[in-house]
Amino acid sequence: MLNKFCKKPLYEVTLKMANVATGVEKADMVIKNAKLVNVCTCEIQEGIDVAIAEGRIALVGDASQCIGDATKVIDATGQYIAPGFMDAHIHVESAMIGVGEYARAVVPHGTTGIFMDPHEICNVCGPDGVKAMIEDGKRVPLKSMSNVPSCIPAVAGFEDTGSHIGPKEVREMMTWDGVMGLGEMMNFPGVIYGDPNVHGELAETLKADQVITGHYSVPDTANGLNAYIASGVRCCHESTRAEDVLEKMRHGMYALMRYGSAWHDMPVIIRAILDNKVEDRFACLISDDTHPDTLISEGHLDYIVRLAVKEGLDPIKAIQYVTINPATCFRMDHEMGSITPGKCADIVFFDDLNDIQITRTMIDGDIVAENGKMTVEIGKSAFPASVYDTMHVGETITPESFKIAAPEGAGASVKTRVMEIIPNRVGDYERIMDLKVADGAVQNDPDNDVIKMAVFERHHKTGTKGLGFLKGFGLKKGAMAQTVSHDAHNLLVAGTNDEDMALAANTLIECGGGLCAVADGKVLALVPLPIAGLMSDEPVEVVADKITKLDAAWKDMGCTINSPYMTMALMALACLPELRLTNRGMVDCRTFQFVDLFAE
Amino acid sequence: MLNKFCKKPLYEVTLKMANVATGVEKADMVIKNAKLVNVCTCEIQEGIDVAIAEGRIALVGDASQCIGDATKVIDATGQYIAPGFMDAHIHVESAMIGVGEYARAVVPHGTTGIFMDPHEICNVCGPDGVKAMIEDGKRVPLKSMSNVPSCIPAVAGFEDTGSHIGPKEVREMMTWDGVMGLGEMMNFPGVIYGDPNVHGELAETLKADQVITGHYSVPDTANGLNAYIASGVRCCHESTRAEDVLEKMRHGMYALMRYGSAWHDMPVIIRAILDNKVEDRFACLISDDTHPDTLISEGHLDYIVRLAVKEGLDPIKAIQYVTINPATCFRMDHEMGSITPGKCADIVFFDDLNDIQITRTMIDGDIVAENGKMTVEIGKSAFPASVYDTMHVGETITPESFKIAAPEGAGASVKTRVMEIIPNRVGDYERIMDLKVADGAVQNDPDNDVIKMAVFERHHKTGTKGLGFLKGFGLKKGAMAQTVSHDAHNLLVAGTNDEDMALAANTLIECGGGLCAVADGKVLALVPLPIAGLMSDEPVEVVADKITKLDAAWKDMGCTINSPYMTMALMALACLPELRLTNRGMVDCRTFQFVDLFAE
Repeated sequence: MLNKFCKKPLYEVTLKMANVATGVEKADMVIKNAKLVNVCTCEIQEGIDVAIAEGRIALVGDASQCIGDATKVIDATGQYIAPGFMDAHIHVESAMIGVGEYARAVVPHGTTGIFMDPHEICNVCGPDGVKAMIEDGKRVPLKSMSNVPSCIPAVAGFEDTGSHIGPKEVREMMTWDGVMGLGEMMNFPGVIYGDPNVHGELAETLKADQVITGHYSVPDTANGLNAYIASGVRCCHESTRAEDVLEKMRHGMYALMRYGSAWHDMPVIIRAILDNKVEDRFACLISDDTHPDTLISEGHLDYIVRLAVKEGLDPIKAIQYVTINPATCFRMDHEMGSITPGKCADIVFFDDLNDIQITRTMIDGDIVAENGKMTVEIGKSAFPASVYDTMHVGETITPESFKIAAPEGAGASVKTRVMEIIPNRVGDYERIMDLKVADGAVQNDPDNDVIKMAVFERHHKTGTKGLGFLKGFGLKKGAMAQTVSHDAHNLLVAGTNDEDMALAANTLIECGGGLCAVADGKVLALVPLPIAGLMSDEPVEVVADKITKLDAAWKDMGCTINSPYMTMALMALACLPELRLTNRGMVDCRTFQFVDLFAE
Repeated sequence: MLNKFCKKPLYEVTLKMANVATGVEKADMVIKNAKLVNVCTCEIQEGIDVAIAEGRIALVGDASQCIGDATKVIDATGQYIAPGFMDAHIHVESAMIGVGEYARAVVPHGTTGIFMDPHEICNVCGPDGVKAMIEDGKRVPLKSMSNVPSCIPAVAGFEDTGSHIGPKEVREMMTWDGVMGLGEMMNFPGVIYGDPNVHGELAETLKADQVITGHYSVPDTANGLNAYIASGVRCCHESTRAEDVLEKMRHGMYALMRYGSAWHDMPVIIRAILDNKVEDRFACLISDDTHPDTLISEGHLDYIVRLAVKEGLDPIKAIQYVTINPATCFRMDHEMGSITPGKCADIVFFDDLNDIQITRTMIDGDIVAENGKMTVEIGKSAFPASVYDTMHVGETITPESFKIAAPEGAGASVKTRVMEIIPNRVGDYERIMDLKVADGAVQNDPDNDVIKMAVFERHHKTGTKGLGFLKGFGLKKGAMAQTVSHDAHNLLVAGTNDEDMALAANTLIECGGGLCAVADGKVLALVPLPIAGLMSDEPVEVVADKITKLDAAWKDMGCTINSPYMTMALMALACLPELRLTNRGMVDCRTFQFVDLFAE
């Protein structure tokens, strides 16, 4: 694929490259005397210079002849240099910040390129949202290469999203500058069992000579996995067992081993490589979803590389997994992913191979971060007004909105379907519980940890909503609301009483979406996310701080689980077993059928 | 790059692939219970089935559910299967046969794809010759992927060829179906020192998102190699020392290790990998030039793989070097080079991993060769009439044509520049010798092994010719002529007497070009090569037999060196040191200047 993510395309500067290598012209910059992490041959080479011009590497070796009066020289004695790190699968929205701010958070950690899947904003704002992310990415040096979200809506027919993506949209978006492939094809049943719409999207991607990225999350590594890969899917980040990774690599699929803020698969699945004598050119390390506090406290790919090394992976291999391997996965290895002549000068510096802490990041030959801070100015957020206007709830929300009428002829109690969460897992259980009826309405049961939940459609004012009950959050009082509510990102509200729920809902409607916690008629914590109800336009540190305060508010209300807003964000995702509530009602996700709230 | 070399593009058949993998539809063919050479993970997997439909692999694993009544089942118990072999750099013309016949020779040896550089025919016939080769390739299952010849003429200004290639031609030819890159950029000085025409060709190739193949044959692995690679060249087959291979791989360049009929670099240069603990994803094995007799007696890539294994290379690695590695070099690994779902079903079978003898070759799911023979019909040669009409010498050749007039005022002898060959090397020496003058003409010196040589321009009837002297062939009588005469492929004649030289020349003019040996007024051996004066339209076995007879005739005439016609074929190649003779005259190839035949 032609590389749009560079200062100048190589075809414009081949002559300059040759001239600089031979010393006829002088380099813009020379890195002197580094220890090179050579990801091509998997070795460390000492005493290496790198000459850079036009944002590209002109020479690797002895660059004495490339240094002129105007050449900036970096003495890298004692330092390692490696290609800039690339994340082959990342949803920027999970960090609750835009691409520009995300870059500010990750570039100092050595990330120079991301293959982002702007799936969340696309659910809310459609292709315009994707375009807004791509545009926001242009104000930062980070190479923000975008995939086209493939599964909008995630579970068609069971929820209402802000948009829809099909083969026609994919065909058009594949022509966009900044697009590098198809986003994670979560509808693997649609691939395996031949949904024509799904295969239409695959075909449009392949026709555009782009890469299809995957999401295959079931343990069948036989027929299903073969069908999925044979349909053209090139990589997958959903392995949870070592054997998933092994079989994917054996089948020529890039195994993207994930370590996100919440999904800690890597230490388990990397055993596929560490315990088997297999070649690993199909292995990558990725983050998928990272929260703002993780970015600040731990880092990004550098953190995952360090963890992989701790698990026993050779550090050069770990670096291959975030450089040449993802570049080859996206067929961009002729442009990125190694410190070799002609490639973009995306280079990171560090001192200790066994504890990689990035001290300097270079992108396209410019030093863009040093000692943990960006060294270049980043312009203001470039999101258009439209993405700030996404709270379109078709009902004026009052405490009355949350009333759940008892079924006709109900007595003092009624058998009700309740969603019970499983701590630290994405699944839940369906529980049939007897809930009390009072004044014709079914009631919470705080003594048994049962609270109310509602999902209001917020994209097209359809006025639809779903009502139900949740168990397991431990709330003793108050309510919460959030518009980060996968994947349709409707307005999700849950709480112990209708008054606080109404306040929580209206607080978010007023601020354009986000997360909040409310108790006794007061807002305890608010994380405004006015960009599509998903992202803030404030600095990542501010967002992380607000998230910390939200966590504290949840604790005040009695919830003791980790990052409860994340578990809550999945309660409307109708593809996770067993029972979920969307704006259209309650869904049995084992049978993919709507079910009644009341069990007989 | 989109793959034009398949039965159907994947985007047309993703649904079918999925259906076959799951057993909803049945496979066209299933290979049962094979030992799979897995080039992705570098391991052998036993008991593997492969299901095939639409020419592509739908499943690798247990294919029981893919077998229907119409499914052809191959029991591969006890047999290995590997991806079909691909030659990343090959000149078909060197085998003196067209692409179709070449396919018949190599496909039974397991070659399923070649990246051919039709450089020789392009020198004679221009882009039309390249097109003729591509078209001839279409009549055979072998995937004949063509590069656009980059250096026509090879040494501009010092010889006359039939054609010319520049940036304009490259731009146009890059759009042709069947073109996959730029042919070997032999003009590495032009790259390194910034020839705008050369860089124009590179730029056009990169703009077309194609691969530039290289030819970098000097020992400078510092500035020159960096300049060359930084200009976008992705691979090179001209390494002659282990350190060349090592440095090329370290610089992200694919090192194509050559073992042709005449150039036996591989055993030496593979030490780069065997003696160093370096990763080898940038290593390939290639043939470059193979003669018809080698193809028949030894094979093609299978032969080179066997030799590499003998040198100590792990056989799975050797197979990677002719499968997934070349596929990745040409950015076609998503379509070829591994036995994984979705890829073209290009598969070879063999029984012994340590002595790989191909028993069956499959291309696009069809068995095309078994037990050393093609099993499919190959149509007649498809070359157009124009390539049969390439002998356009501007002079009626008689013995008088070879008279070399002594310089004015010469005495009984004259100091003359003589080209002395070096056995088994491509270079030669300049020797200054005293040659006798008789009747105003400079004479051969058979006692000192000095014969006459002439080069007649044969493309455009310019009537130009070069005359000189040669030492080292050992001819006692007779003469020879050949139109295989790199790279301009003019009519080269050499011999002990003018009468036989004239007969040799006219014999070739009459038959449309080729190779011949003549003595005492009789034609001893003739290999007619009527296609561009380079290739026969007879079967490879017939051509090999005629070559054997030609070798015998050379021996009859007193020449004892190996394959003398090959050494002779380089005597007009004005880029090899030290002294060469072209149709324009004598060239000092160290200084790139015309020099006088007489040394003062």
